[in-house]
Formats: sequence, structure tokens, C-alpha cells
Amino acid sequence: MRMYDLIMKKRNGNALSEKEIEFMVEGYTKGEIPDYQMSAMTMAIFFQGMNEQETLALTMAMAHSGDMLDLSGINGIKVDKHSTGGVGDKTSLALTPMVAALGVPVAKMSGRGLGHTGGTIDKLESFIGFSTAITEKQFKDNVNSIGISIMGQTADLAPADKKLYALRDVTATVDNMSLIASSIMSKKLAAGADAIVLDVKTGSGAFMKAEEDAFELAKEMVKIGHGAGRKTSAVISDMDEPLGFAVGNALEVKEAIDTLKGKGPKDFVELCLTLGSYMVVAAQKAQSIEEARGMLEKVIEDGSALDKLAAFIEAQGGDKEMVYHPEKLPLASMIEEIPSPVEGYIKHIECDEIGICSLILGGGRETKESEIDLSVGLVLKKKVGDFVKKGETLAVIHANDSEKLRSATERFLGAYTFSEELVAKKKLIKGIVTQ
Amino acid sequence: MRMYDLIMKKRNGNALSEKEIEFMVEGYTKGEIPDYQMSAMTMAIFFQGMNEQETLALTMAMAHSGDMLDLSGINGIKVDKHSTGGVGDKTSLALTPMVAALGVPVAKMSGRGLGHTGGTIDKLESFIGFSTAITEKQFKDNVNSIGISIMGQTADLAPADKKLYALRDVTATVDNMSLIASSIMSKKLAAGADAIVLDVKTGSGAFMKAEEDAFELAKEMVKIGHGAGRKTSAVISDMDEPLGFAVGNALEVKEAIDTLKGKGPKDFVELCLTLGSYMVVAAQKAQSIEEARGMLEKVIEDGSALDKLAAFIEAQGGDKEMVYHPEKLPLASMIEEIPSPVEGYIKHIECDEIGICSLILGGGRETKESEIDLSVGLVLKKKVGDFVKKGETLAVIHANDSEKLRSATERFLGAYTFSEELVAKKKLIKGIVTQ
Repeated sequence: MRMYDLIMKKRNGNALSEKEIEFMVEGYTKGEIPDYQMSAMTMAIFFQGMNEQETLALTMAMAHSGDMLDLSGINGIKVDKHSTGGVGDKTSLALTPMVAALGVPVAKMSGRGLGHTGGTIDKLESFIGFSTAITEKQFKDNVNSIGISIMGQTADLAPADKKLYALRDVTATVDNMSLIASSIMSKKLAAGADAIVLDVKTGSGAFMKAEEDAFELAKEMVKIGHGAGRKTSAVISDMDEPLGFAVGNALEVKEAIDTLKGKGPKDFVELCLTLGSYMVVAAQKAQSIEEARGMLEKVIEDGSALDKLAAFIEAQGGDKEMVYHPEKLPLASMIEEIPSPVEGYIKHIECDEIGICSLILGGGRETKESEIDLSVGLVLKKKVGDFVKKGETLAVIHANDSEKLRSATERFLGAYTFSEELVAKKKLIKGIVTQ
Repeated sequence: MRMYDLIMKKRNGNALSEKEIEFMVEGYTKGEIPDYQMSAMTMAIFFQGMNEQETLALTMAMAHSGDMLDLSGINGIKVDKHSTGGVGDKTSLALTPMVAALGVPVAKMSGRGLGHTGGTIDKLESFIGFSTAITEKQFKDNVNSIGISIMGQTADLAPADKKLYALRDVTATVDNMSLIASSIMSKKLAAGADAIVLDVKTGSGAFMKAEEDAFELAKEMVKIGHGAGRKTSAVISDMDEPLGFAVGNALEVKEAIDTLKGKGPKDFVELCLTLGSYMVVAAQKAQSIEEARGMLEKVIEDGSALDKLAAFIEAQGGDKEMVYHPEKLPLASMIEEIPSPVEGYIKHIECDEIGICSLILGGGRETKESEIDLSVGLVLKKKVGDFVKKGETLAVIHANDSEKLRSATERFLGAYTFSEELVAKKKLIKGIVTQ
């Protein structure tokens, strides 16, 4: 078998066989197939596409290119959740204790990642003493005893995907549905969960700007999941404005705690309940989505989800008192209100720009080596559809540097568009894809 | 400017500007743009194409990527000829002395190349003592004094094309008209001629199998030539069977000498007269194609073309007596007739296969390091449309190794198809493209 012939075959519009895809992924991972052939292939795939069988074969080959986690030592049906990412997305922080409180085992291996804010691990480090540097035994023991644990990524998960994504990123071949879907799903399959619930974001702050693209991606991923024998469903949710109000690490932790106390933003609570319902049903802890939703509302009401978060933080060395007293979380030295320059309805918030404000303040990583400032960020007071008077507070900005504060504030104001006419509020859940 | 953006632009179907193409070619030649980005670009070009301006800009940028030969020290209008290559193509050997005899300056820089037989330089080395290792001064002096000289390639002509072609060759992005045309024309432009006559072959033994593709390529190249300010024309000629009868180095030299003596194969003579006419007119040595053709017929008749070849061979150290006594050319030790296995009309000759017979016999190079046996090859006795009796000689094979002789003979017979019904002879000249 020669990579040249496979490129030619795909270029001419023919489907690659499972064996051919395995040859390609294995050869590329080992460095036997050079980057320049692989990039010609991904560009050919961009133009000619891949069918369902090819996409599944690519995903499986990438999933098997490194370690496949074995979670069989953990009791129960393991359900993983994945979000395609967005601004103010603190879902895992609230959602995992909620489902864990209902007996759904949460065993997550997380990385730090790049972005407008830190990843879940960075955010959790707002709790003094908290660490994800635990052994695999401790990790599994914690899940079996308290129902939830998160460890730093030690295993070599889907190295083929890592290498291929880096190549696509510099050769303008990222935006192909089959390649995007297989990239996400290969990592999820390698991470060992029995079932997967996907949160596919759409809008100005999402990778998938157009709603139909988000649905298409969701369908591709659900098909892959089922093809790989994992129960998979996807929720398509709005990311045309930030999720909830808080953007920034410790600020998002606080909002997640508020949510577990029953005082969360309406959109964020809705998302947690929706995703959580599918997770609880997938874990066979409820018969129906409706039943699961009622159970999730109850663990917020009775405080058991908040207690689950506290137990989790404590089990990994963190100060659980901060869960009950979030005022102890890292706080920035400068906290200022941003007044509205006009009166009117908020018509649009350029979501990505709000993320960049957090990055400017120091809340995210521009490179892998960047240090994160956990305390900075923004708390929105008005979102799309809200009416605001001139001078009324649009948001509160948290900063540790006056120059960055000035620069982020300016950028923030440029992200808002106003209207004299009534503007409809955003609908959070756009749809659900199951097979 | 970033290569990533250029890939994206082309991928999305937009035209690249001259500046962008220059940036790309320069960066790639210097190694600042990696292979994996360039191969993604060539695959994008394969799908999205390039317009006339882009193709010209690419050609010019590649031509200027290395040395641009300055032939201004040579008197007269320098006309270069280029063939897209085929089996039994000894055109340069006969054509250059013909036009030189009419005062068209022939100043060629040649390489050896890979193929079924050697390149023009290899073939010329059939003359004992002949060498292309001459100085640039000697080269120019020879052209000015006797009207013809060929030197080995010393200059660094179009290195961007060399690098890009090698990449396309392993990434299934060779067959795009704009890329093929710019590759050929960049080298021709760098080689410094004032006018260019192209011989674009079509048929089973040519790179362009389909006639319409050959015409398309010819049009692309003629447009580029004119765009670059060089008078350019193209002849589309048949390569569905070998050109003339001889395939093999010394055998082709002998056939070229026969042609200069007025005893050449009909198709080969026709090609030399056609290409030659356009060269003579381009060099302003005749007013019309018809006049030029008459002049070329005359230099064969009166022996002045043969004398020009002898003078050329002598000026570069070769034994000119061999021109008048071609029986002194290298001769193989085994010369055998291949009898026809059946009676009938010859319907088809798989042209590439005849080339491979020559390669098997040792007449060509498989790798750059291969040694060439100048004496071996085949002389066809029957071509498409000819009637043959069972046992009548189809061809004479020249070999120096009985095992290779056996293997080549077997392959040769597999290349012929016969028919009981009358078969039309091949038409050599398919058309002419000028602007």
C-alpha cells in the first residue's frame, strides 16, 4: 500500500477502505508518512468529503493510535460530556457534581488547553490546595467512593489526532465536518466512557457559526458514537452571546456554585438540566428525560449537588470551605462597572470579543507557557434583549492592571450593539440529536 | 503575508495576486514555506484551478527563482524547441542542424534526464569524443561561428520548479494544466530564448493521453509565452505509436542521420519540417511557413544540414566521420528479428511498452545513477495500419544480453494488437496552436 495511491484515490472522489485508513493513520503517527502527503490528503478530503464508513474508520484508527483508557474498574455506566467550547462555558463545574449526586460516575481526564479562559482544571485550581496530580488508583478509588474525580491527562490519548490537528491547523484544512467530528470523537472514545453527551455550540462565539453546521456536526458525531458502540446524544446550544453572566476563571467558579445553590443564570441552569438529563438517562439512573430533569432539580434544591462539589474538592486536596464561602475565591484588585454609553435594547453581543476581553485581562493562555490570572474577568449585567438606560451598568470588570482594564473596557464596549426597538431574547437550546 | 491565508484563499476559489504568488514561490524556494503547506496549496489548485494571470505569475516567479540565462552575446533571434516527450523522439538530433543550416542560432543547454532512452546529450555521446562539458565562452563562440552548440546544464535554472515538481510527484498533484504548463515554461523562459516552438505529444506514449488535453496544455503554454513576451507556438503531434522506427540511443542517432540524408521515416520527416518551419519563421529567416518548409527541404537535399551536424559534432570534440559513416556508431552484439505471430493489420501499438523494452535492454535510466547502453534498442519494421504476414519481421531488436533480449522480445509482442480488417494509418500532426 502506498500513501500516493490513497491520495490519488481520494482526490478522484473514491472512498478509502478501513484498511487503507488504518494504514494511513498508523503510518502518519509513526512518521513513516510525511506531513506533505498528509496535508495533500486532508485538502483532498476537504474537497471530496468522507462517507460515514470512512469517518468512523478514521475516528477508530485515531482513537487506537495511543492509549485506550480502561475504566472497567469503576462501577456503573460511565458517561462523558464534551462541549465544542465557547465563552463563559463553565458547564462541567456545575454539571458534574449534579449528575454525581445522582450516582452517575464522573471519571474525567482533563487537559488545560488554550483559550479565552483556562480549562476546567485551571478553574478548579481557584480552590486553594486543589490538585489533579493524583495517581490512577486514587482517581478510580475516588470515583468509586465519592462518585467523582478529575485527573490531569497522563495517558497518551489519540496522538494521531493531535498530530493531524496541528497539521490541519496550518494548512487551512480544519473546517471539514468529517475531520472535525473524528477529531473530537477519537479523543472521547480513547477516554473510555460508555456513553457520551455532546454540547455542540453555535453562534458568533462558537466554532460552528451557522446553526445548520452545528446540527450537521452533531449528527456526524452521534453516528460515529453509535458506530463505535457508545450511546451518544448531542444538544445544540446557543453561543451567540456568552453563557450565563461570568467570563473568567474564579468568576465562573462562583457562578457555578451559585447555580448549585439554585441562584444560577436562567440560560446556564437550563443547559445544565438539559445535558444532565441525557447523562442521567444514559447512565440508566432514570427512565425518561423528564424524570431525570426532576431529579436534577431536586439535587440543587436539597443542596446535595453542592455537597458533592465540596466532597470532590476536599478529596483532591482543596479547601471545601470555599465552596460554601465563594467570597474566599481569588478576587481581583480592581473591580469597576462599565456603564452603557446609550439607551436601548441590546441587539447583539459579539461573543468572541468578550472572550478576548478576558484574555486581555490575563484570564486565558495565548501560548502553552502563559500564566493564568484566576481572579480577572467580566460579569455581564445585561444580555441580548435586555433594556438598558444610558449610564446603567452593562457589566462589572475585574482586573489587576489599570492598562489592561482600560484596554479590555474599550474592547468590551465595541462588542455591544444597541437597538431602539424591542429585541427577542436568545433561545438557548436549538435542538437535540439522538440516533 | 502568510502562506496559511494564501492556501485558504485558493481553497475558497479566489485568485491569488502576482505579489502573493511571488511571496509563495520565493518562500518555498528558500525553505521558509514548508512542503506540507505547499502540497495543501497544490491540491487546492488541483480543485480550484488558476486563471491566466495566476498561471503567468507562477511561471515568471519560478523562472526568476534561479539563474536567467543571458544569450544576448549570440547574434540573431534565438529559438528554442521543447518536446513534452515520447518514445523514439530523436527530433532535436535532426531538427537543430536543419534550422542551424538556415542561420537560425541554436544555443541549447541540456540535461540528461530519466526515461526510456537517454536524453539528447546521451544520444550525442554515441559520437566518439563528443562532449558537452564546454565553457560558456566556447558555447557562445561556437553558436556565433558555426551556428549551433549544446552545453551541459551548469546554471541553476528554475530551482523552484524543480522543488515543486518533486513535491507534486509524490502528492498526486501533477496533473493540473496550469501547473504542468508553468513547470515547462518556467524552464524555457529561464533558458533565455527569444522565441519558443513547442511539440506537444498526445496518445498512449505521451503524458497527455487525450488529444483535447494536449490542445489545452498547448494553449496554456502559448498564452504564457506571449504573456512573457516570447513568440511562442505549439505543434500537437501523435505519440500513439513510436515516432519513426528507431527506439534506442545510437539507433536514433542513425535514424536522424538517415533523415538528414533524405532517407528518414515519413512521420519523423514531417514532424521535423513542421516544427522547423515555425522555428525558421520565428527567427525571421522566412516570410511564411510554406517558404520555410521549402528551405528546410532544400538543406536536406543539398546535404548542408548533414554537414552542419558534422561541424557541430567536430566543434565539440566528436568524430565527424561517424556522421558520414553511421555504421561506426555503437552496435550491439546481438541483433535479432522479431517475427509476427499472426497475419493481419496492425491495429495498435502500446507505445509506452515499446519504451519499456528499450529500458529493459539497458537503453534508459531507471535512476539518476544508472549507466546507459548506447547500442541497444529496437527498430520497428511495421507500424499501425501496416499489413504483416505470419513470420514476417515486426522489428529488429538490438541487445547485449540474451536474458534481456528474451524479456524485451516478450514484452514487445505483448504491445502489438492485430486486426483482420484494414486499419487507418495515424495522422502525425493533430494541429497547431499560435496566438
